[in-house]
Amino acid sequence: MDIPTTPAVSTGPLTELLDGRWGHVRREARKRMAEMPPPAAYDLTTEQHRAQVFDELKLLADAGYPRIGFPEEYGGDGDTGGSLTSFEMLGFGDLSLMVKAGVQWGLFGGAVEALGTRRHHDAVLRGIMDLDIPGCFAMTETGHGSDVQHLRTTATYDPGTREFVLHTPHESARKDYIGNAARDGRMAVVFAQLITGGQTRGVHALLVRIRDEQGATVPGVTIEDCGRKAGLNGVDNGRIWFDHLRVPRESLLNRYGDVAEDGTYSSPIEGDGRRFFTMLGTLIRGRISVAGAAGSAAKSALAIAVRYGLTRRQFEAPGGDGEVVVLDYLAHQRKLLPALATSYALHFAQEELVTTLHELAGVEFTDGERSGDDDPDHEHRQRELESRAAGLKAAGTWHASRTIQACREACGGAGYLAENRLPQLRADTDVFTTFEGDNTVLLQLVAKGLLTGYRQHVGELGSVGMARFIADQVVSTVVERTAARSAIERLVNAVTPNDEETDLLDRGWHVKLFEDREKHVLDTVVRRLRHAGDDGADPFEVFNDAQDHVLRAARVHVDRIVLEAFIAGIERCTDEPTKQLLNRVCDLHVLANVEADLDWFLGHGRLTTARAKAVTGAVNALCKHLRPHAATLVDAFAIPEELIAAPIATGAEAARQDAQRAHEAEQLSGTTR
Amino acid sequence: MDIPTTPAVSTGPLTELLDGRWGHVRREARKRMAEMPPPAAYDLTTEQHRAQVFDELKLLADAGYPRIGFPEEYGGDGDTGGSLTSFEMLGFGDLSLMVKAGVQWGLFGGAVEALGTRRHHDAVLRGIMDLDIPGCFAMTETGHGSDVQHLRTTATYDPGTREFVLHTPHESARKDYIGNAARDGRMAVVFAQLITGGQTRGVHALLVRIRDEQGATVPGVTIEDCGRKAGLNGVDNGRIWFDHLRVPRESLLNRYGDVAEDGTYSSPIEGDGRRFFTMLGTLIRGRISVAGAAGSAAKSALAIAVRYGLTRRQFEAPGGDGEVVVLDYLAHQRKLLPALATSYALHFAQEELVTTLHELAGVEFTDGERSGDDDPDHEHRQRELESRAAGLKAAGTWHASRTIQACREACGGAGYLAENRLPQLRADTDVFTTFEGDNTVLLQLVAKGLLTGYRQHVGELGSVGMARFIADQVVSTVVERTAARSAIERLVNAVTPNDEETDLLDRGWHVKLFEDREKHVLDTVVRRLRHAGDDGADPFEVFNDAQDHVLRAARVHVDRIVLEAFIAGIERCTDEPTKQLLNRVCDLHVLANVEADLDWFLGHGRLTTARAKAVTGAVNALCKHLRPHAATLVDAFAIPEELIAAPIATGAEAARQDAQRAHEAEQLSGTTR
Repeated sequence: MDIPTTPAVSTGPLTELLDGRWGHVRREARKRMAEMPPPAAYDLTTEQHRAQVFDELKLLADAGYPRIGFPEEYGGDGDTGGSLTSFEMLGFGDLSLMVKAGVQWGLFGGAVEALGTRRHHDAVLRGIMDLDIPGCFAMTETGHGSDVQHLRTTATYDPGTREFVLHTPHESARKDYIGNAARDGRMAVVFAQLITGGQTRGVHALLVRIRDEQGATVPGVTIEDCGRKAGLNGVDNGRIWFDHLRVPRESLLNRYGDVAEDGTYSSPIEGDGRRFFTMLGTLIRGRISVAGAAGSAAKSALAIAVRYGLTRRQFEAPGGDGEVVVLDYLAHQRKLLPALATSYALHFAQEELVTTLHELAGVEFTDGERSGDDDPDHEHRQRELESRAAGLKAAGTWHASRTIQACREACGGAGYLAENRLPQLRADTDVFTTFEGDNTVLLQLVAKGLLTGYRQHVGELGSVGMARFIADQVVSTVVERTAARSAIERLVNAVTPNDEETDLLDRGWHVKLFEDREKHVLDTVVRRLRHAGDDGADPFEVFNDAQDHVLRAARVHVDRIVLEAFIAGIERCTDEPTKQLLNRVCDLHVLANVEADLDWFLGHGRLTTARAKAVTGAVNALCKHLRPHAATLVDAFAIPEELIAAPIATGAEAARQDAQRAHEAEQLSGTTR
Repeated sequence: MDIPTTPAVSTGPLTELLDGRWGHVRREARKRMAEMPPPAAYDLTTEQHRAQVFDELKLLADAGYPRIGFPEEYGGDGDTGGSLTSFEMLGFGDLSLMVKAGVQWGLFGGAVEALGTRRHHDAVLRGIMDLDIPGCFAMTETGHGSDVQHLRTTATYDPGTREFVLHTPHESARKDYIGNAARDGRMAVVFAQLITGGQTRGVHALLVRIRDEQGATVPGVTIEDCGRKAGLNGVDNGRIWFDHLRVPRESLLNRYGDVAEDGTYSSPIEGDGRRFFTMLGTLIRGRISVAGAAGSAAKSALAIAVRYGLTRRQFEAPGGDGEVVVLDYLAHQRKLLPALATSYALHFAQEELVTTLHELAGVEFTDGERSGDDDPDHEHRQRELESRAAGLKAAGTWHASRTIQACREACGGAGYLAENRLPQLRADTDVFTTFEGDNTVLLQLVAKGLLTGYRQHVGELGSVGMARFIADQVVSTVVERTAARSAIERLVNAVTPNDEETDLLDRGWHVKLFEDREKHVLDTVVRRLRHAGDDGADPFEVFNDAQDHVLRAARVHVDRIVLEAFIAGIERCTDEPTKQLLNRVCDLHVLANVEADLDWFLGHGRLTTARAKAVTGAVNALCKHLRPHAATLVDAFAIPEELIAAPIATGAEAARQDAQRAHEAEQLSGTTR
């Protein structure tokens, strides 16, 4: 393997490519965020931090920031992609603000918009945008976080008074971890089991007042503060109990299910399960926002650690002059550069996901009454999008956790100091792997999508009961290319069949390797699950024994999607030197992924032992090759210096190191050894 | 592979085995710690937390706690092992207190004791024990943390006044991250380049006053607060600058190097480097303490997560009745149970290390003037101990970081709440991978020890310049069994040569597998480094290209040491059911380790692909097998309930879940679906 020479690259074209379709939103956000209070919040008490974040949220509202994502008829821009890009950019600042904004405008506002009808929109959308009505998204309960279909809060219709009675039947049914609940929320979208005429109709959402204008909790509602958390302490999470709270019939967000005055239930969607999953579609944007913000946090951490690694020196090289810059050590490069490469890959995957959602939302908007709901192709694309949002959220948030941690360790003791921001980045993003869907549960969702083809073919069967059915599906069609179809086709077709001699940097070989892994893992999962319906087999046991295998299927699927998006991104690049650099970054991303999964490739005869060793050698060589470009690669994220903020990354450290070297040169003849 | 049935085991004999030789110290510590303020400190400001920890430290001092590790002639017990065990037990409480105690009595007191002579001992040891003299261990500088041999602070002897002039020549030479410096420290052991007669003599330590009795900084000393950190905010870390501070000649801790009144330098140890490394021997206890405390923190986290996993239910099983306990899911078991098994392994390795140090220290004490220093066998054992302390510190602290993180994620949103302790455990232990020696640097130290046999054979050459020399050493003798020699010999000899058919649970096969891996990795590293002395080869490049390989050599060496310690621990067990359980725990520890390194075993032809798959199957089967014993395994740590403290792990959660199930059984016929 020969690595082609990569010329020096300026950040300009690289930043432009990364900025992509919503570049204008990103540039505007950079300007705005550089002028806001610095992201550091570690010297604040919980109450101070909450107050600061609320004030910042108000500034955003006053500047009209949240309008971008809301419908034009309510003064918004209807720019879904721009809205998601804005959330991603907030990830460069104090993540408490990003999450608080996400709760207010993404989850609370988004649920009212998506699940409500005109009466709700007219009543509250403007107030939500302006922050006159701070609100909560009250879904999770103590007893049910991942399994939200089985929430226990009840909303029982009373035809006598034409009201719903909202109730928390026992302790585990209390709403928990609800953002905006402990301090600021005035209203809440509450998810509850709808009961009318003595019959349960599944989970529905109601728009409910929880505090009055003066901020006092309304009768029938009890709120408790969740208290201090690992991070995100600018967000006021709380617990909510309802004690037979009576709310008008019109509180029901009735787009997907309604109750007439006499208590008759109606819905445009048949089946409690299918209706519920349609409602859950509103969570997609939340997941995409979290993935985006996680990506931004990882980029901030990488910018800090790479810059520090380029100024920090430790240990004299044998026979060398002076101490070695720590990023020259292979072990240090390995901590940071493959993670940096994967951050690039995920950036392009995120951009593609946002674009897809934006276009799908566009179809909705232009269709007026969103008749798209009943269009099978629309539903197909919607399911595909949900699956990809779930998969990328899991991949992106785990990547952020690992990467920020590696950055902290790479900065040693300096990385442990709050002033250098890594502790807060780490602590704030930690829960990203859990909220908006636990990552493990999300990967199962992805796997379920892969296994069934698409849900509508199999109705509402659970992930296990239908195992035999699944097994009979044709899965070979699942590997459906998501981006840059023709370019990838060309690459794959150009690969010679003899893998052993193919260059390790051959992109077509990379794609084939990832596709082949995905197909094989999926195929073998299906074979295992086939036995779930056998006589005497305990379906839970069959599923459970295969759980790690199922999760692997989802992971390698996401790996392939991400790679394709990276390739498509490089295809869009028109600046030749930038393209060359990105190709090497992509090589490192791919081969580090292969190396991490080497046991699979070896164990399944996909790589010989010689070639496996060559992969490790190539990762090392690519790290060395990209080392001179490390500064460019983090600078191209164009994070405002005011937001990077860490003294070790913003010149102060470099100045001190320079002073030391000057001093030592001066003293050189002062003492003898 | 058939897993033998494991009977139900009571925690009694298991706890007794784990408690081991210093069981009395552990039992006493449990009683004392249960009576102290709860470990939670997340609602305190930095200053409140520091004050609380200082008060607790004073309580420990007043109770005579620190005496256990100091010499009998100063009122101590001279019980080195007991002292280290005490630090390990402090790891179950607020880790700020553990670190603060470690700084005061381990590092500061330990340095005075080990590097000073009678004049220093008489003057301050009692004051240090009683906390009348709070002190600092001022080694690390901003510019030199890992490479402490090249510290820049100077101590220049002035024969005219018989004083040393202590000076910080430039910004990077300031002392940094120094515990006890920002608030409480009155004195400090300061490490500096000793200069006398215009000649540098390498790093030495001086005992210096930095604050007066009223707590004001003395003239010539400037102190700055490092401010908020990710965790350990009960410890007051600071930066110290010296501006030509004059201290008496007697300030020099002169056991290993002295300066006469006229400025003549003398030392019982030849060579700056060798002398320095002898002085660094004082750091061993710090490393062992950190490893021990990390182990305790990981155990606390596992106790919390396993108990929660046993009460928390989520998702209904198909065809089952009710929701599934989350620890019944394979993916959940895989997050927690292999980590629990490795915690057991590391516990026994830690105990063995403490015992070895204790016995070596005993030789010192009984020899009166510690003539052991010049005994080649003593030096050999000392080097071996240093290497093991470094390796276990790296392995143990990384294990703790990963495990606590996995526990946090396994507890979902509840794991993110401060009240459930996981956030603080995670944040407090995070820096353990960095301080008392950065883990990556420590692993290189281990590798260096392995490569050279023992340092005295090669003098003071650096790790790279001597590469050719190293390569000529015989490394086959390196695999020297550390524990339970005869028992292991028996196990290994009983293995049939045909690996493929050996039972996956055969302990002799495990040992052979680990030994063989260590030998092979070491052998190939040596072959690579042999070229470092070749004409035209850049020695740094040769070393650097092999760095990941060098680190692997250290890691697999530590893996083998830990396994042998686990086997030795099981050998000591006299209760048959307990022994059976521990054997399964050891199986899981080993096979999870093999699985994590499967690419190596496959890539080097050590396992066939069929057997590699069987390893994964065995890990799954062992998880399932140990699942019913999970509660016993964490209860056997005997952590006082007052210290576990997390509501999700101490009955409150279980009570709520019971109430929910009772309520739901009652309501069963209330609504129809």
